[in-house]
Amino acid sequence: MSTSYEQFCPVARTLDVIGERWTILILRDLLLEGPRKFHQLQRSLAGVSPNTLSARLKRLEEHGVIAHRFYEQHPPRAEYLLTDKGRALGPALAALRDWGLQHAGGRMHPKYRALETASRPKGRP
Amino acid sequence: MSTSYEQFCPVARTLDVIGERWTILILRDLLLEGPRKFHQLQRSLAGVSPNTLSARLKRLEEHGVIAHRFYEQHPPRAEYLLTDKGRALGPALAALRDWGLQHAGGRMHPKYRALETASRPKGRP
Repeated sequence: MSTSYEQFCPVARTLDVIGERWTILILRDLLLEGPRKFHQLQRSLAGVSPNTLSARLKRLEEHGVIAHRFYEQHPPRAEYLLTDKGRALGPALAALRDWGLQHAGGRMHPKYRALETASRPKGRP
Repeated sequence: MSTSYEQFCPVARTLDVIGERWTILILRDLLLEGPRKFHQLQRSLAGVSPNTLSARLKRLEEHGVIAHRFYEQHPPRAEYLLTDKGRALGPALAALRDWGLQHAGGRMHPKYRALETASRPKGRP
């Protein structure tokens, strides 16, 4: 990606933050399920390595798309949740879902209907 | 990606086809610029290797998202263009653009305003 293109293209800038399969599936889970623990994400994203999942979560947090909070202090255990900026990706994921339904065949679990509404705050930020 | 998750998740199925940075930027160019030659895509996607670009175009064509046609016979030279299925990705790219504008900073070249309307047929299929 050349700097000049990126500078003027909001699609490319978005992909700088979320342009990767696991990243988008992490956002899908947080949008649909609310706050998630590491092992829950790992189970859902079958095939992701712990190192890759850690790296993706770290990157999303650095970009302010997700945050973490501790649900246990001894030993410290964190769960991950969307910020407002992350929840604002709901419409984009809903648009990807709609294309998949129309053009990539297969069936849909009813829970995916919630992607539009999932961009509203859910639980704590 | 587990088979069962993919089977029921239209987001995951969409990412099977377009879930990769270069792929989405190829679609962006075809939506905004119309039919493109290989060297035009390569120049626009600064940083992509010819092998990677070939592989992404091949995959998109296998999935019926793009097609190619020859604009020169001797030597044979092809250009790539969206099918109806590919043009239907316009709203998803527009949603990614909107998030980028609001949340990933930077500026926008005026041509990106055309992403919504780009999903209408442009030239030949």
